[in-house]
Amino acid sequence: MNTSGLQKRFLELRSNKAFELFVVFVIIFSAIVVGAKTYDLPPIMLESLSWLDSFITMIFLVEIVIRFLGEERKRDFFKGGWNIFDTLIVVASLVPVDESEMAFIGRLLRIFRVLRMVSIIPELRVLLNSLLLALPQLGYVMLLMFIIFYIYAAIGATLFASINPELWGDISISLLTLFRVMTFEDWTDVMYETMAVYRMSWIYYLTFIFLTAFAFLNMVIGIVVSVIEKENAKEAAEHSTEPSRSDLHAEIQELKQMIAELSQSQKGQA
Amino acid sequence: MNTSGLQKRFLELRSNKAFELFVVFVIIFSAIVVGAKTYDLPPIMLESLSWLDSFITMIFLVEIVIRFLGEERKRDFFKGGWNIFDTLIVVASLVPVDESEMAFIGRLLRIFRVLRMVSIIPELRVLLNSLLLALPQLGYVMLLMFIIFYIYAAIGATLFASINPELWGDISISLLTLFRVMTFEDWTDVMYETMAVYRMSWIYYLTFIFLTAFAFLNMVIGIVVSVIEKENAKEAAEHSTEPSRSDLHAEIQELKQMIAELSQSQKGQA
Amino acid sequence: MNTSGLQKRFLELRSNKAFELFVVFVIIFSAIVVGAKTYDLPPIMLESLSWLDSFITMIFLVEIVIRFLGEERKRDFFKGGWNIFDTLIVVASLVPVDESEMAFIGRLLRIFRVLRMVSIIPELRVLLNSLLLALPQLGYVMLLMFIIFYIYAAIGATLFASINPELWGDISISLLTLFRVMTFEDWTDVMYETMAVYRMSWIYYLTFIFLTAFAFLNMVIGIVVSVIEKENAKEAAEHSTEPSRSDLHAEIQELKQMIAELSQSQKGQA
Amino acid sequence: MNTSGLQKRFLELRSNKAFELFVVFVIIFSAIVVGAKTYDLPPIMLESLSWLDSFITMIFLVEIVIRFLGEERKRDFFKGGWNIFDTLIVVASLVPVDESEMAFIGRLLRIFRVLRMVSIIPELRVLLNSLLLALPQLGYVMLLMFIIFYIYAAIGATLFASINPELWGDISISLLTLFRVMTFEDWTDVMYETMAVYRMSWIYYLTFIFLTAFAFLNMVIGIVVSVIEKENAKEAAEHSTEPSRSDLHAEIQELKQMIAELSQSQKGQA
Repeated sequence: MNTSGLQKRFLELRSNKAFELFVVFVIIFSAIVVGAKTYDLPPIMLESLSWLDSFITMIFLVEIVIRFLGEERKRDFFKGGWNIFDTLIVVASLVPVDESEMAFIGRLLRIFRVLRMVSIIPELRVLLNSLLLALPQLGYVMLLMFIIFYIYAAIGATLFASINPELWGDISISLLTLFRVMTFEDWTDVMYETMAVYRMSWIYYLTFIFLTAFAFLNMVIGIVVSVIEKENAKEAAEHSTEPSRSDLHAEIQELKQMIAELSQSQKGQA
Repeated sequence: MNTSGLQKRFLELRSNKAFELFVVFVIIFSAIVVGAKTYDLPPIMLESLSWLDSFITMIFLVEIVIRFLGEERKRDFFKGGWNIFDTLIVVASLVPVDESEMAFIGRLLRIFRVLRMVSIIPELRVLLNSLLLALPQLGYVMLLMFIIFYIYAAIGATLFASINPELWGDISISLLTLFRVMTFEDWTDVMYETMAVYRMSWIYYLTFIFLTAFAFLNMVIGIVVSVIEKENAKEAAEHSTEPSRSDLHAEIQELKQMIAELSQSQKGQA
Repeated sequence: MNTSGLQKRFLELRSNKAFELFVVFVIIFSAIVVGAKTYDLPPIMLESLSWLDSFITMIFLVEIVIRFLGEERKRDFFKGGWNIFDTLIVVASLVPVDESEMAFIGRLLRIFRVLRMVSIIPELRVLLNSLLLALPQLGYVMLLMFIIFYIYAAIGATLFASINPELWGDISISLLTLFRVMTFEDWTDVMYETMAVYRMSWIYYLTFIFLTAFAFLNMVIGIVVSVIEKENAKEAAEHSTEPSRSDLHAEIQELKQMIAELSQSQKGQA
Repeated sequence: MNTSGLQKRFLELRSNKAFELFVVFVIIFSAIVVGAKTYDLPPIMLESLSWLDSFITMIFLVEIVIRFLGEERKRDFFKGGWNIFDTLIVVASLVPVDESEMAFIGRLLRIFRVLRMVSIIPELRVLLNSLLLALPQLGYVMLLMFIIFYIYAAIGATLFASINPELWGDISISLLTLFRVMTFEDWTDVMYETMAVYRMSWIYYLTFIFLTAFAFLNMVIGIVVSVIEKENAKEAAEHSTEPSRSDLHAEIQELKQMIAELSQSQKGQA
């Protein structure tokens, strides 16, 4: 009963708006600390930043523990993807790192603590989920686009490797060069270079741009239509308070029955 | 009563189409004066431009005073955001500026007088308001995008600062560099430079481009859908002259009642 | 009567599919001639091209005359904008041009004959008309965008003229530079140059990009929504074969009337 | 009867999920082989890749034969466009190529085998078909855009050929240069060069960008609207389980008839 009482108090604390705001503030503060470290600072500042960092790690640890203890059934805590994400980030920050190699990874991990902003603000969590939900329907378009990229990269690496090995040396470099062409970044320089050898190679670039732009457009439209459809479905659900045409039909059917009976009884009378 | 009579005449003047057109003409003229000042002109032209400028300021002052006096309740005048904006612009132009520093600010203020075009043309005011209304719903997408930018900038400043401090020196420079990458402006130059040290750094750039492009697309779609929804709502409101299905349902219900009564009276008769 | 008979035959000729196809073929041929002239050709080829050109002009002249004579009321001919356009192009080609200056204009006029493709193919004419119809609704957005451009250009010409007069010398050059920035074309080079003097000038560029991109997006959405709305209106018109809810309401009203009368007569009977 | 039995077993094999998965795996493997060949490899690796290639060709041949024998009516096999595509790719791979020229074409053909991925995965086939279906409705927009390009290229080749023959030498090079301008790739360099001679040539570039961007936007919207319309049509078809307003109208009509008869019989009674 004592444990249950504590759990309840932790749950209350967790749901407390002020507590949530405090955690958001600490995350913002940790983001500023991460940013501050990228500047050239005097040693005394660096040391105090290091102390602040440990302090933030402690607060995060306490917060995770409170959230864990506030959970009624401990198992459920690890069912939420965001809880696992938060725990991993915090636990990883606890591992002491001194060697240069590891220190580097430690710094990267501290950067990812900014992502906790997404896990703590519900609106951002909803937004990210909706973005992730849109991904699968783009799957086949992405596959088709990759096939186009792969074929063009294979042709490019076969034809142009001897012209400029830095751009077309092998298929992976060619894929990167083609991505550059798709973003229109100095793509004419790439084209003019190969056109000096193969005069007709502009066909290669123009067809590639048309195909990928077309596939990209389809992706955009795919998202737009699906979003609009969902909105329409929602709207239709809201309209359900009105009787449907089927309801009206049933009512008229009943009317007919009533009149038929009336007619029958009149004939009986006659 | 005398004051009230004057106020009415000012109100009439304010609502006068010719007066409005005259103010629009003065604003366009002031815009041309602002533009003309950026050219190399002989001193005599510059002086006459300066005179014109003072003249325009006077007209604006008179116009604001007319609009203020035309207001029935003087308090309401400062409730309109556009009135405050106009007054500030005009009053600021009145402050005499002679020193080089202040003269500079004075010139900037004269440029902002072109914005009065928005406050005077109702269609532009409506357009700007609708643009501003669309902003809040983009808020969380902007926040998510900023978080992505911040994390990538922190990683960039940590990893690439030693490669090119001009692009990745600290987190604020890195944010600017990433904005450049998002606009595809010479982004491959930035990438090739870091790929010379970290061979796999193309992953950094490609994931960043995908994430920001995806978020940007969502923003676009967000606006499109919300605009379409509003249009649909308007359309639905226009259709309200037609009886709803609920109305039809009520009518049929009445019919049933009538037939039931008829049936009853017949039975009574029998 | 003779004239009327001729007019009818010309009308028939004008509506003839083969005649239309022949004119399309001549226009395509004239486009090829225009293109061929841009190549370095031996004198004999140039001369024959010149002959071909005169021949094409003759065909166009005959065609216009046929179309004019085929018109029942000669006045109506000049009511169609496309007819005036065609006539102007053909008549202008007839003016003999020998001097170098005029020859140049003559060549440009021959290029515009390719536009006759639009006037002869009905689908292209419809498409162009729909594009032109979409323009007015974009008017205010274009005006708002121009105001933004003008203000930024005035600020740019005031602040940056001394840094690089080739980019920011006066307000018209600044407008061109800002258009360049909006297309993201080497905009960072422009920015880095001014940031060397004014460290905070990145604010100028970033706010400009956000404002113009936002206005541009609104333009796109404006077109999309208006097109969808028109499609919806068309769809609604097609659905008009179905009785409206108002029709159903009227029918039910009649039913009520009938039952009320029935009820009345029964009471009378009783 | 023996043949028919074999055909049935081939049909079963063809429809077998494991068989399909195996073919997909072989295609992916062949894509990897194609990619691997673009790297600098030791001779022994190259030889084994060559062996693998022959092996893959054999598997593809066997697969095509199985699919052909599995077809009930042999003629129908060549009615499917994808079957013809697959057969051509496989048969072309069989032709022995030793000379340098032909070897090159042979390598390209092996690259196109990756496209078999599209023919084997139904979802990709559907996606590609829907992309191809959207093409015709874009036809006239493409034609209009080409006319704009052609006129601007003819003007460009006439005016600017002497300024920079590499960009404006003849109409085909001018078309390529204009495509570059449309993608905003270093378009200001092209413009500044011609502006040094013709000061007003910025009009040429700005009008071109506006026209092509506008036409491009229309293309995008054309696709979006048509897709949405189709979705709406589908939705309407799904709603057809509900009685239409015409159905309700007919029902009410019947009711009227019944009441009229009732009224008649009552009068008769009286």
